[in-house]
Amino acid sequence: MEKLLKMSSKKILIVSGTHGNEINPIWAVDKFTKSNNSNLEVNNLSFVKGNPSAISKGLRYVDIDLNRSFSKKVKDPNENLYEFKRAKFLVEKYGINGLMPCNIAIDLHTTTSSMGTSIVMYGRREADFCLASILQNKFGLPIYLHEKDINQTGFLVEAWPCGLVIEIGPVAQNYYDPKIVENFLIILEFLQNTEFNAENIRFNSSSEITFFVHQKSIDYPRDEDKKINAIIHPMRVNMDWKIIQKGDPLFLDIEGKTITYNESHKVYPVFIGEAAYQEKNIAMSFTKKETMNIPKSWFNSFLL
Amino acid sequence: MEKLLKMSSKKILIVSGTHGNEINPIWAVDKFTKSNNSNLEVNNLSFVKGNPSAISKGLRYVDIDLNRSFSKKVKDPNENLYEFKRAKFLVEKYGINGLMPCNIAIDLHTTTSSMGTSIVMYGRREADFCLASILQNKFGLPIYLHEKDINQTGFLVEAWPCGLVIEIGPVAQNYYDPKIVENFLIILEFLQNTEFNAENIRFNSSSEITFFVHQKSIDYPRDEDKKINAIIHPMRVNMDWKIIQKGDPLFLDIEGKTITYNESHKVYPVFIGEAAYQEKNIAMSFTKKETMNIPKSWFNSFLL
Repeated sequence: MEKLLKMSSKKILIVSGTHGNEINPIWAVDKFTKSNNSNLEVNNLSFVKGNPSAISKGLRYVDIDLNRSFSKKVKDPNENLYEFKRAKFLVEKYGINGLMPCNIAIDLHTTTSSMGTSIVMYGRREADFCLASILQNKFGLPIYLHEKDINQTGFLVEAWPCGLVIEIGPVAQNYYDPKIVENFLIILEFLQNTEFNAENIRFNSSSEITFFVHQKSIDYPRDEDKKINAIIHPMRVNMDWKIIQKGDPLFLDIEGKTITYNESHKVYPVFIGEAAYQEKNIAMSFTKKETMNIPKSWFNSFLL
Repeated sequence: MEKLLKMSSKKILIVSGTHGNEINPIWAVDKFTKSNNSNLEVNNLSFVKGNPSAISKGLRYVDIDLNRSFSKKVKDPNENLYEFKRAKFLVEKYGINGLMPCNIAIDLHTTTSSMGTSIVMYGRREADFCLASILQNKFGLPIYLHEKDINQTGFLVEAWPCGLVIEIGPVAQNYYDPKIVENFLIILEFLQNTEFNAENIRFNSSSEITFFVHQKSIDYPRDEDKKINAIIHPMRVNMDWKIIQKGDPLFLDIEGKTITYNESHKVYPVFIGEAAYQEKNIAMSFTKKETMNIPKSWFNSFLL
């Protein structure tokens, strides 16, 4: 019989409120910890609010986006900004070599796009594939694999040896939606109740994993003054994860003209029209679907 | 034959972007003016962006809420704040005694609540009832009559002799929704194409008007630290304009307990869970339905 590799000693850090205006995960975590009579730890789960100052103000961030502030540079021009210091604090406290070390970070987010309940992975780390596979197999979640995007770096979960974002939408910023809360609670309860050992993984994961790999992001069409002059086309709104091909509508411009997708390869757009990404010049991101088999050895390492 | 009192000489000021993160009316107005080859005027309509600085930042406001900054006080502690100065500018330029005088102001807003396309009136001005009646009769819009709320004053449209807010939702802040844009365009096209004269009013308005009168606003339940500890109940979400009675659920608290409406009279809640109202300590507002007949003399005065 295969040796049962227990992961019960592994600590999972649950981060909510990395963006202060994404209030449903904050509420879900508070509800979850309250029902378990602890604010800080439940079984193998530790909890922390990512950006308390932004939460108190109802803003995405105070100085800079916290979830782009976990870069590894020693010297950084942003080092005195609130979020940069906060990122340093979180790693020093909960990082793998921190005072209260956690092996895994799960960062809870919402989006105004129709992403449903989804996973975001950053790069192709073996441990991330194992954890994502377990969640995908359990809940059927689609996975957005973000990689090779030099304009978007320093994500929180990258500062841990293993880590994923859970991203749920659509929901407005600063708007409580009980359905969204419920979807976060389902994930939290699963993480609390599932011991990640070899036996559970045999039952709960599949060696095959499907994910949507970031290809590029596109901006809204803009006029000579850099002002947006076309918005998401009605036929593209709420169509995240749906394949498009050459000729399919992307935007509807100010004069009512349709702007189509004109590349020859088919892509799956995600984060369509996300409110917070206008300042990043992102109207949507294109992904390519990919399937792979996770070697058994990766799971074995994951459980060590 | 009744004398045809023309209103074609009346100027209607269309304000978009009074809140800088309500981007759909801004887009709708830009689209409308573009299609009419003018940025500033189309027939009897003049256009202005309420809060350009907040728009450029994607924020509701910069210093204070512009749509609470039109108070009549000569001396005000807020007089150096951006929005207070902007309010003064708008009245000096477009007010009834301004450089480019307008008789009517229509202020376009969105909400994260499920208000549909609706009208907000401030107080019981005869001219407002006439204009609201025309719009209600044409489009069946529900009307929220805001009055007797000492915590909420200084609304933009109150600075004009006649004025209404058009409020459409649900839509997230900073999120373009083509359906919401379309709903604003329908209103703009009606205002452009309808000459408000006695004949049109006979056809387009009803002497009977139904509206929902503000009774009071209630806050979210909060703990001893003033932190929200109950969110809108799943059965109350998206149920704006729907009557409730004693015993109906209002909130679901952090421990899963339902908090019910406990007053004896039936009310119609509106702006349920509006994201921007958390800072105003408003979870929803209760209204009472009222119907009245508009005297013919009011319409005659309205058309003068």
